Amino acid sequence: MKAIHYSEAPTKLFDDGRARAVAGRVVIGKADGAETFCMRVFEIGPGGHTPRHAHAWEHEMFYHSGEGEVLCDGRSIPVRPGSVVFVPGGAEHQVRNAGPAPLVFVCLIPSSAPEI
Amino acid sequence: MKAIHYSEAPTKLFDDGRARAVAGRVVIGKADGAETFCMRVFEIGPGGHTPRHAHAWEHEMFYHSGEGEVLCDGRSIPVRPGSVVFVPGGAEHQVRNAGPAPLVFVCLIPSSAPEI
Repeated sequence: MKAIHYSEAPTKLFDDGRARAVAGRVVIGKADGAETFCMRVFEIGPGGHTPRHAHAWEHEMFYHSGEGEVLCDGRSIPVRPGSVVFVPGGAEHQVRNAGPAPLVFVCLIPSSAPEI
Repeated sequence: MKAIHYSEAPTKLFDDGRARAVAGRVVIGKADGAETFCMRVFEIGPGGHTPRHAHAWEHEMFYHSGEGEVLCDGRSIPVRPGSVVFVPGGAEHQVRNAGPAPLVFVCLIPSSAPEI
């Protein structure tokens, strides 16, 4: 059993131009005995975004706080607290903060993918 | 691709004594093409709780709003917005609302388990 607040997990920063103002954390992963899927939590600062990219594995996302948009296969989808987004494997996608506060969301992937 | 607010998904109520004041929703599942793991969102009303039970599959939980406690293998863990809990397969567990507002959390399971 593991119980933490997501903010207690080690943070990896992504701010190389392709990504801007993104902090990612693996909160449940293989090290915890989770062998099928992995939970990460991301915080995107105002004006920030994840890279626009595609990969073979899917994302299951839940939006916790803030306001944003998800670009997926040419569509733009607004997201707010309680929004749920499924990005299938192979779909080009990007998450953007569209508000003044951090955009915080949970993003799960299968264990076959890199954890972060 | 799928994008909804969790409250738009069909609701299944659990209020048979073992569970009290629990509303569950499958928000991403096999019907959406999610073949490895399934996302559900649960709302527990004030005074409510899930059944105290155990099963072979694991839970990965993220707490979105409200205040509660998770009982797991004899431990009591307080949860609040942003809490993350991993319940391994086989562990006895129960989620209880400990506050005046709905307790809302995301609970993911492998696709081999019943979706709800």
